[in-house]
Amino acid sequence: MRIVRYAVDGARHYGEFEDGDARIVRCEGDPFTGMSPTGQVDEVGDVVVLPPLERPRIFGFAYNYAAHIDETDRDVPEVPVCFMKPSTAVVGPGDAIVYPADGELIHFEGELVAVIGKEARHVKASEAHEYILGYTCGNDVSDRIVQRRESAFGTLLIGKGQDTFAPLGPVIATGLDPSDLALTTRVNGAVAQSASTVDLLLAVPDLVAYLSRYLTLLPGDAIMTGTPSGVGPIRPGDEVEVEIEGIGVLCNPVVAESR
Amino acid sequence: MRIVRYAVDGARHYGEFEDGDARIVRCEGDPFTGMSPTGQVDEVGDVVVLPPLERPRIFGFAYNYAAHIDETDRDVPEVPVCFMKPSTAVVGPGDAIVYPADGELIHFEGELVAVIGKEARHVKASEAHEYILGYTCGNDVSDRIVQRRESAFGTLLIGKGQDTFAPLGPVIATGLDPSDLALTTRVNGAVAQSASTVDLLLAVPDLVAYLSRYLTLLPGDAIMTGTPSGVGPIRPGDEVEVEIEGIGVLCNPVVAESR
Repeated sequence: MRIVRYAVDGARHYGEFEDGDARIVRCEGDPFTGMSPTGQVDEVGDVVVLPPLERPRIFGFAYNYAAHIDETDRDVPEVPVCFMKPSTAVVGPGDAIVYPADGELIHFEGELVAVIGKEARHVKASEAHEYILGYTCGNDVSDRIVQRRESAFGTLLIGKGQDTFAPLGPVIATGLDPSDLALTTRVNGAVAQSASTVDLLLAVPDLVAYLSRYLTLLPGDAIMTGTPSGVGPIRPGDEVEVEIEGIGVLCNPVVAESR
Repeated sequence: MRIVRYAVDGARHYGEFEDGDARIVRCEGDPFTGMSPTGQVDEVGDVVVLPPLERPRIFGFAYNYAAHIDETDRDVPEVPVCFMKPSTAVVGPGDAIVYPADGELIHFEGELVAVIGKEARHVKASEAHEYILGYTCGNDVSDRIVQRRESAFGTLLIGKGQDTFAPLGPVIATGLDPSDLALTTRVNGAVAQSASTVDLLLAVPDLVAYLSRYLTLLPGDAIMTGTPSGVGPIRPGDEVEVEIEGIGVLCNPVVAESR
């Protein structure tokens, strides 16, 4: 199932893509409390596709691919390295990543994102799949200058939490095996990241088990699983695509902040 | 105004304390979209006081009192040091702080907490008060072992984000000047922290200005402003009180995790 959230005629709906994503079966409800078809079908050309989650909690992981750790000159962490991105960082497919007026070095990070389907606490890795609704693409946009300054004092918020720094979408794909998905990030059409989730140091079930050991995961939470090697800068005028096998392409332009 | 959130007869309401917090004027709505009296008045003995915010976004600041920086052997940070605590960490007055089964060194941190009243972006410090609904007491409970391990890799989540690690309450006090409030933390009745918010390195308006420079603050967001000196360990069986002038006392027992 390919779950899409969208706006049409001033209202917002969840729906299911069909016919190669050409049409959307409009639904009542949401994927967490239950979706049922309304009988209405929308043409994709008539709607605006929204981020698949509205103001989710976002848990991110860093240093979760060996090749990316290498490029950052870091050691493999002794504990999972995680942080939160605020819900206000979320934008959807086609939405602008706003390059801050005082931004100096902003990076893209293509990532597989797991969406929690039901409340999870003390979940074993072997059972984690029961708590995952599906997967989407994410871009963990990062302000490296602020990130370095914050991390020197042991925290991380503004470096990854600015408005528009969490593009998500285009769909939540259910029934997907996350263990070996091709992930490609392109900037202006040129491939920058090309990897497989098989190289995640902590696989998706491990991330769910780790977080839920300490805290209660809620329906609609997003877990950004970390980025592979090949991260790099973006500038206003660029276009970034994150493509993941079985999910689709998340494409966002980079636009200078105007104020 | 002293805004209280509470449960009575299986329903949840916001209300206003009156008669020295003995009675509650029950209201419809919430303090963010508008509260109006229902005509019902509840006796405080008949209700359960809840955390004043339901699953808020929580932004925390570290190293924001010089005397606390001294006790941690840190330098004054070159940037504001901020992080998020997940909404699931929130508990209310009287609720247990659950001491994790594998916890080794858990600390209390008494803090003044600002509650955002309306959406805020690019707000000047001089105008920040217009965006603040009021203030409550908070305890930024911290797992120092996990915190140190995470911070060594530049992030912080589990060290401060475990379930029950964010007691808040007992009320949201409006019309309060946050610039010089006495803050006292007691463990089993003995004073551990005794300070004034006048010693905040970044005062409340500065924190709102800083965050809103980068991200959109939303109604109901909680900003934990940092803890003064005197932090220390808690153990199962302890009782922690955070008292702030003009707000009241937030009291929580510490209970061992059972599983």
